[in-house]
Amino acid sequence: MDMSRSRVFFDVASSLDGFIAPEGMDLAHADEPDYKQWASQWAKLQSWVFQQQFFRKNLKLGDGGETGRENRMLEDSFNRTGASIMGKRMFDGGERFWPEEAPFHTPVFVLTHQVRKPWVRPGGATFHLVNDGIESALGQTRRATGNRDVRIAGGANVIQQYVNAALVDEFPIHYSPVFFGQRAQLFSGTSKDIKVKIREAVASKEVTHVTFEVER
Amino acid sequence: MDMSRSRVFFDVASSLDGFIAPEGMDLAHADEPDYKQWASQWAKLQSWVFQQQFFRKNLKLGDGGETGRENRMLEDSFNRTGASIMGKRMFDGGERFWPEEAPFHTPVFVLTHQVRKPWVRPGGATFHLVNDGIESALGQTRRATGNRDVRIAGGANVIQQYVNAALVDEFPIHYSPVFFGQRAQLFSGTSKDIKVKIREAVASKEVTHVTFEVER
Repeated sequence: MDMSRSRVFFDVASSLDGFIAPEGMDLAHADEPDYKQWASQWAKLQSWVFQQQFFRKNLKLGDGGETGRENRMLEDSFNRTGASIMGKRMFDGGERFWPEEAPFHTPVFVLTHQVRKPWVRPGGATFHLVNDGIESALGQTRRATGNRDVRIAGGANVIQQYVNAALVDEFPIHYSPVFFGQRAQLFSGTSKDIKVKIREAVASKEVTHVTFEVER
Repeated sequence: MDMSRSRVFFDVASSLDGFIAPEGMDLAHADEPDYKQWASQWAKLQSWVFQQQFFRKNLKLGDGGETGRENRMLEDSFNRTGASIMGKRMFDGGERFWPEEAPFHTPVFVLTHQVRKPWVRPGGATFHLVNDGIESALGQTRRATGNRDVRIAGGANVIQQYVNAALVDEFPIHYSPVFFGQRAQLFSGTSKDIKVKIREAVASKEVTHVTFEVER
């Protein structure tokens, strides 16, 4: 099987100070949206997403929504993804909060030390817990993509590991004008040996979208 | 005197990981451009600037250069500035490396504990060392602007102090696709109570320019 066309990417929203999730947004405080204002901070980061038709449909949030360029960005990232990789903390949160049809609809490989049978969801998402490191996980994920691309779903630490191992090909970042002040930064600890260039930047009212390509 | 029209801004280039200067770029290593590759890292951050006619002329780097929208951005930031504020470390570096006609051509107020007479440069830049805190320095700077605006020149720590004191009105950031990996981040420690929105974003080949406005 030729997998050469499979690209590895991530696609995240970032606060101005470089965080992809607000302080206080964790399992322990999931029922306390006022804790450190995590829910309103998260809403500021993601407000443009919740307005898009594709996202609303995928998460069964209701009809309607915008159908312009930003909607196509979300749709394209989804459609190109044949399988995803995520960290255990993201999985733990999702296991509790995703709708029954987890919004991936493709295989997901979870980096963890936990040994557990695959968790099969209706709608096509099956979560495989893998225990032998990021390169092995990427190999397993590539074999599950059906020649589509691999998305590193998150969190920040997992993305950093793949970036620093030079295993990521490209990444759009959606910069929202909000400061988080705390929590793991997307790029803290990223090696300056990673070379990137801008492929495309798209300005909109609420957010600035920049797609970077990693140079080899 | 009515100073109500005077705005406070800064205008910086940022690496993807949020740094405005590379590791190793300091007085001790000024003659060692290969030290931690600081000179080539700096060049990546600023390459778009060195191509602009206005910058080349202001630093007497030679004729020619681009005259498009990015050139106008630099020119506008310069022309609106009636006086600037900077930290002592930036001043120490500049005292050694600016051309005799320091490229400000207006009064500059330097935050320091050092007591010293004003340092007068040909071409209009006079450096006043001030010893009584950021608010007093801003008051003195406002009185020297002639109704133009106040620019917080840097470094990152001084900008952070003014941002967190809610004394900054707006700021363009020019995002360059380079990772620095180390050194003081522009927004590390910025309070999440600072509210900003996007006024304008401009995409270009090498850099993404976003101008933010602080909401009151």
